[in-house]
This record gives sequence, C-alpha cells and structure tokens, in this order.
Amino acid sequence: MKSQIRILGIDDAAFNKFKDKEVIVIGTVFRGGDFMDGVMTTKVKVDGDDATNKVIEMINKSKFKTQFRAIITDGIAVAGFNIFDVPLLYEKTRIPVIVVMRNYPDLKKIRGALTKLNMKNKIALLEKAGDIHKYKEIYFQVYGMEKEDAIEILNISCTHSYIPEPIRIAHLIGAGLVFGESKGRA
Amino acid sequence: MKSQIRILGIDDAAFNKFKDKEVIVIGTVFRGGDFMDGVMTTKVKVDGDDATNKVIEMINKSKFKTQFRAIITDGIAVAGFNIFDVPLLYEKTRIPVIVVMRNYPDLKKIRGALTKLNMKNKIALLEKAGDIHKYKEIYFQVYGMEKEDAIEILNISCTHSYIPEPIRIAHLIGAGLVFGESKGRA
Repeated sequence: MKSQIRILGIDDAAFNKFKDKEVIVIGTVFRGGDFMDGVMTTKVKVDGDDATNKVIEMINKSKFKTQFRAIITDGIAVAGFNIFDVPLLYEKTRIPVIVVMRNYPDLKKIRGALTKLNMKNKIALLEKAGDIHKYKEIYFQVYGMEKEDAIEILNISCTHSYIPEPIRIAHLIGAGLVFGESKGRA
Repeated sequence: MKSQIRILGIDDAAFNKFKDKEVIVIGTVFRGGDFMDGVMTTKVKVDGDDATNKVIEMINKSKFKTQFRAIITDGIAVAGFNIFDVPLLYEKTRIPVIVVMRNYPDLKKIRGALTKLNMKNKIALLEKAGDIHKYKEIYFQVYGMEKEDAIEILNISCTHSYIPEPIRIAHLIGAGLVFGESKGRA
C-alpha cells in the first residue's frame, strides 16, 4: 500500500447537549498521515438517526471521493447517540470504514443507556460494525476490507500520536468550533 | 531559532457577502510547520472594525498564549474589509505579526474601494502594517520583529507548499465550513 493514500477522518464538533439541536461533523481529507488537503463539514441531529446518510452525502459530493481508500471515524457515533450504520456507510460509498476507539467500549453500559433513552433499535448498529480489535493503544472495528489492511492504514496514519492523524485533526477542529465562550480553550 | 516554535495562523471562513453578517475566523496553533496542536475560532462582522479586538481576545484567552513566537495572518483583512490594526495586534498580545499575501497588493485599487465604501479611515491601517517584502513566491509585512526573523519563521513554516502551513490549514478549515451547499467542495 502506498504511504500517500487518501484517507477521510470523521469526528464531531463540541456541543451543548442541553441546548444544541444540531452538531457539526468534520471530515478531514488526508494524504497519508501528514498532509491535509481538504476539510468538509455537515450537520447532524443530536441523538438523531441522520449521521450515516449525512456523511454518505458529504462524501459522495466530494471531489476526492474516488480517491479515498478508507474512512476512519472517531468512535461509532457523533452528536451523542447518532450512531453510524457502518455497513450502509460502506455500501453507499464503496469506501472501507475503520471505527477507532480510544478505549474498549463498555457495551453493557451503552446498551443500558440506549434502552433507557428508547433507542433500543440502535443496539443492532453497534453489533453490525463487527468485531473489536486492538491496535497498539487503541481499538478498532473494520468493514469493507481485511483486518490486516486496516492495520496497514493505521500504521500509515498514526504519525504524530497513537491516534490516526485524520481523526486527531478532525477532533481539534471540532473542539475549536466553540464560539463566544471563555473556556481558555485552544 | 528552534524549528518547533509555536505559531498561530489566522484566516477567515468562506462567507456569502450578500447574506452573512458575521464570519468565522480560524486560528491554527502549530508547532513548527508540521504539527497542529490546536484550533481556535472567533466571529467578526463583515466589513466591520472588530477583527483586531476579536483576535486579541481569542489569543489572550488561549492556553498557548505565552508560547506563541509569531502570528501569521492570511492577508491583512478578514470578512471583507475588516482590516487588522497590526501594530495594535502586536501591542496587545506582545506577539510579532507577519501578514502574508499571495500577490503584491494593488494598493491603489484597495484605496479606491475603501473610499467608495466610506471606509477611507481604514486606509491608514494598510500603511501602519509596514513595508511589503518578497519571500519566494509570496509577499509579507512584519511588525514586532526584524525582517530576518520573519524570514526564518517563513522558512520553518512553509513545509508543504509555498504558503506557511498554519495559514494553509486555517484556509482549508475555513473553506470547509460551508454547510448545506452542493459545491463539490472538499
């Protein structure tokens, strides 16, 4: 695999769960793990069901679309419990998906929360994303390519930290998109 | 000068000059020319007078504030003709400012436009920013440090293109912050 493959990193922006109805989702376009050559954004509903379709739409209208070799998401959900349907994301874009998690998810706790919030139907989305694997200090699920290929993409993209650079940068952008608050935030 | 100095890159987001009243201004926090470790944002008025104070405020509340060795702005204005008072930006932050321009500015044309728009008072801001120097394919003004130190900072920060990386990335983020439009934008 070439070290300059195009990767799309996905994360959401900071939001106030008591106030905001929509949340910005950021896509960073990387060549390998060091060069960002684009940013795209969309908006999704807090705890909604539209994240998968919004991200599919965002990708399919991108000029880089045919070049992406992988989508890396920072977790399986954005905007609270707006959980990605990972197989659908792959089927509608034909781009393999790697879901990265900083910690091993507490599935029992997540199932409990979803049940309590009347979102029990979303539990299936967690399972559809496949087995959870370990890679150095992080965990991942992969859909649309072999585990070994996903590991190679993680090797290429984890350049500056143990987090793949496309989602590290998407996260920083999302964290910076907070307006008018004196948080001493960088 | 160390290659890992902290630099703040400033650019504005895309906006619709017929519709938008405020524009997002993006600050990227870089260590040298390769590692981004923060993003900050503020909002300023289209063709307003608040860019200088809003950016001063954004910087002064940042946790990186004491570490910045330079501010690099992409042009001397954001949000149309919201022109920076470069000496004031320096005085209130004590961080030297480098204004980068992709082309040599047509000062006669800018003066004409400002006069026509009843913003003649802003012409002085262009002059206060100092002489315009050439650096490879770009031009710059500098305030608060020697021209030679500014060149050293441009050498450190122009890693991936002829544009300093902090403003190249601020520009990409700003361009990506356009919602709900089918521009095929990346």
